[in-house]
Amino acid sequence: MTVTDERLGDLQTQIPNASIITDPDVTESYRRDWARDPDAGRPLAVVRATSTEDVQAVMRWATAHNIPVVPRGAGSGLSGGATAVDGGIVLTTELMRNIEVNPVTRMAVVQPGLINVEVKRAVAEHGLWYPPDPSSFEMCSIGGNAATNAGGLCCVKYGVTTDYILGLQVVLADGTAVRLGGPRLKDSAGLSLTKLFVGSEGTLGIITEITIRLLPEQAPASTVVGSFATVQDATNAILDITRVMRPAMLEFMDRASIGAVESGMNMGLDLNAHGMLIAQSDSPGEDRIRATEFMAKVFHDNNASDVFTTDDPKEGEAFTAARRFAIPAVERLGNLLLEDVGVPLPALPALIHGIEDIAARHKLLVAVIAHAGDGNTHPLIVHDPTNEDETARANLAFGEIMDLAISLGGTITGEHGVGRLKKGWLPNQIGEDVMELTRRIKSALDPQHILNPGAVI
Amino acid sequence: MTVTDERLGDLQTQIPNASIITDPDVTESYRRDWARDPDAGRPLAVVRATSTEDVQAVMRWATAHNIPVVPRGAGSGLSGGATAVDGGIVLTTELMRNIEVNPVTRMAVVQPGLINVEVKRAVAEHGLWYPPDPSSFEMCSIGGNAATNAGGLCCVKYGVTTDYILGLQVVLADGTAVRLGGPRLKDSAGLSLTKLFVGSEGTLGIITEITIRLLPEQAPASTVVGSFATVQDATNAILDITRVMRPAMLEFMDRASIGAVESGMNMGLDLNAHGMLIAQSDSPGEDRIRATEFMAKVFHDNNASDVFTTDDPKEGEAFTAARRFAIPAVERLGNLLLEDVGVPLPALPALIHGIEDIAARHKLLVAVIAHAGDGNTHPLIVHDPTNEDETARANLAFGEIMDLAISLGGTITGEHGVGRLKKGWLPNQIGEDVMELTRRIKSALDPQHILNPGAVI
Ligand SMILES: Cc1cc2nc3c(=O)[nH]c(=O)nc-3n(C[C@H](O)[C@H](O)[C@H](O)COP(=O)(O)OP(=O)(O)OC[C@H]3O[C@@H](n4cnc5c(N)ncnc54)[C@H](O)[C@@H]3O)c2cc1C
Ligand SMILES: Cc1cc2nc3c(=O)[nH]c(=O)nc-3n(C[C@H](O)[C@H](O)[C@H](O)COP(=O)(O)OP(=O)(O)OC[C@H]3O[C@@H](n4cnc5c(N)ncnc54)[C@H](O)[C@@H]3O)c2cc1C
Repeated sequence: MTVTDERLGDLQTQIPNASIITDPDVTESYRRDWARDPDAGRPLAVVRATSTEDVQAVMRWATAHNIPVVPRGAGSGLSGGATAVDGGIVLTTELMRNIEVNPVTRMAVVQPGLINVEVKRAVAEHGLWYPPDPSSFEMCSIGGNAATNAGGLCCVKYGVTTDYILGLQVVLADGTAVRLGGPRLKDSAGLSLTKLFVGSEGTLGIITEITIRLLPEQAPASTVVGSFATVQDATNAILDITRVMRPAMLEFMDRASIGAVESGMNMGLDLNAHGMLIAQSDSPGEDRIRATEFMAKVFHDNNASDVFTTDDPKEGEAFTAARRFAIPAVERLGNLLLEDVGVPLPALPALIHGIEDIAARHKLLVAVIAHAGDGNTHPLIVHDPTNEDETARANLAFGEIMDLAISLGGTITGEHGVGRLKKGWLPNQIGEDVMELTRRIKSALDPQHILNPGAVI
Repeated sequence: MTVTDERLGDLQTQIPNASIITDPDVTESYRRDWARDPDAGRPLAVVRATSTEDVQAVMRWATAHNIPVVPRGAGSGLSGGATAVDGGIVLTTELMRNIEVNPVTRMAVVQPGLINVEVKRAVAEHGLWYPPDPSSFEMCSIGGNAATNAGGLCCVKYGVTTDYILGLQVVLADGTAVRLGGPRLKDSAGLSLTKLFVGSEGTLGIITEITIRLLPEQAPASTVVGSFATVQDATNAILDITRVMRPAMLEFMDRASIGAVESGMNMGLDLNAHGMLIAQSDSPGEDRIRATEFMAKVFHDNNASDVFTTDDPKEGEAFTAARRFAIPAVERLGNLLLEDVGVPLPALPALIHGIEDIAARHKLLVAVIAHAGDGNTHPLIVHDPTNEDETARANLAFGEIMDLAISLGGTITGEHGVGRLKKGWLPNQIGEDVMELTRRIKSALDPQHILNPGAVI
């Protein structure tokens, strides 16, 4: 470490165990999350906290010197929530990696730096299951998941991150550490502050400990896959399924994503299909067979071809992996602007066709994958960053897709958060009144606006 | 209506459809909720709102005149959250009773005045299910459920009210009406304000519309009932079940509640048992049989007698009804001070034995029923309000039981809310720091503190 700033020297004496990094070669890799914002700022330093006390000291110091702090987990965020700001601190929780599992109460207390898959593995050793499964589960941190209220593939049946968080320890802007909620399955004492901090994207406080509830091990799932000639057919199948049952997964890939995945994985996917659905049921026992047969019938009734059903979890996992591979696969074709728009299910065809129109108008490739059962889609706007004109068109399309989602009664973000990239559209969705309410809460909790300034608000 | 106050005349001209009641014979019945606070205030008037606009006008008027407003649903609350305050308005939403069900998106938009059972019935017509089921489901309003984040019998598997609320329309202290969230299954746009308002007990805003998500019809449940010689045996059975499976219901009654229910219903319950468990599984198909057999075996393994199993939903409902009847049954023995303390499951025996000690020390009858699978208990402190000494002892016991719950790492309220009755204990549970955070949010949203003053904070 080279301390180039007297104030940083002061800070280091207060947090002897934490490293304060100012070497530009190292800080460079902490300037951006997966949104790869070209305009990311140059931080004063990166601080790798080792404890809640470290985080408290940093926030007290930041408050005293009025220095902005950008909290950072694993940097897999897709909306620029962890983009560094000029002269600020990037405070990463990546070294805070403890977990304590209590199999009797079916809960765990986790530090924020643990990776989602590590949490899943640690609890699996006790026959337990932590459901939330963002596609990035092998690289995102549980702290980042809590801060963004991450979703994933199984949310259509099992809900999102907030549904599994019972308690938080949070360090506020002024360095106070508070405990919200706790290891109680039901708790109505006071305002629902735990839920307010979940999904607050580092703008209200820094999460330093999370109490999660766990489920018994998931039953093995069976899988149904089908190819559809039209998006409308695929959507009809989704509605016919969700009206009467709760699949454990219901994912969609459009033609472009199928193509990208197939060229990387050679699975024999139908390259002519305009949509592919991957559905799972994890119902217990014989009911799983019934559910799978039912979904296969719905696929057929909606003109699907290549309907494939398997009760073998390994075979099913190949399709889930294909779906998870879609983002990296499409990314091989160019840089991505990654959307996260959601609409009420019946509006899915209008959204997807509207996106096709936008892509055609701007002469862009936009691949669409979706957590379809939740109406949450990820249009991936492909562009070459060295091509200025194309980049400008991609940025236009990015905004138009959000406008379209809003006009269909949808949301600009189903799970990735607003961050810095989608901030300009937030007022259009939630309205000036709710923005004002949001600012009032932000100012009440962070009067100097030093916590992740420029994100969300 | 007799308008005795010029300000009320003003208000009436702004809300011609709403009735403003000042007749003491009528307002009397709006002064208290089920907590029956003897110190309830005398309101200036009761306003029965018919629309969001009515509520806005009331709040604008209340802001202008600095008059407190106590929101009220059906008045079934158990913690004095809807107790009237002197010179204030009781604003009831009981006349706002519309519902629109959308079977395609599996959602409904409901006004707050509809009774929980009416919501259940309206959605059942479309083959859908609204799970939250407080024992008071035939008399509590959905608005009150949202405001208290009500729980119930099925939460052990299906979660509480907040898990089913996608969006709210809320009127703020100054009369602004905002829409939070909406008919989107996943939505990460901005702070989780919907979740903040759920459970805020009328202290942050008045809920005038609720968007709920629904599930497909529940599968028929089978039921296992067993009597236990000790509370420890019953608790061991609870832990042995929840460790490996998710029952759809797991309720407990202690000896005193069994006695009270039996004397009202004559079901042949075992009057010598120290605990009775009622468990249900609604797993699909054959798995339900397996789950029921497993739970019956766990009961036997933990020394239960009279283990009774039925796959007939009607027979099962008789036991659920018995459990729901427990509060009214015990109430026949005297006035109740109703607790709602919760603890981590392994601490259940310590809590229940501690309550026995407190009861013995104060020479009181305290019956205990519990949503046992969630660790949420309802000690019912029986006392004769005309007996001053007994009432004083009951009040002492009331506080000591909350102190005990806190000392066991538990909560003073699992589902009923803090209201006015439990306010004194809230700082002991959540701490001064979190109280301060709560006050900051309260002040940011209701700077004049006119919304339900005296409740929670
Ligand atoms: C290939 C790929 C697939 C993805 N799939 C999904 C998906 O299916 N579902 C989904 O929801 N997301 C998905 N994501 C997005 C991303 O993984 C999630 O948003 C994840 O929750 C971010 O976690 P992180 O640890 O990487 O957080 P970061 O990227 O480091 O930070 C994200 C935000 O959280 C804040 N933050 C981080 N840690 C803390 C903390 N301890 N306290 C307070 N604030 C903090 C940051 O300031 C920032 O605003 C995907 C990303 C990629 C690259
Ligand atoms: C026999 C019995 C059994 C019960 N069992 C359960 C149970 O199993 N689980 C459970 O959770 N509860 C239970 N309760 C408690 C009670 O029914 C719940 O708290 C219920 O949610 C209250 O609804 P209500 O419409 O009666 O609200 P009220 O009692 O009228 O009000 C409750 C609180 O909500 C506020 N409020 C009401 N409406 C609004 C609104 N529109 N906007 C803003 N604030 C509002 C009030 O100010 C007050 O603070 C039981 C009660 C009884 C009498």
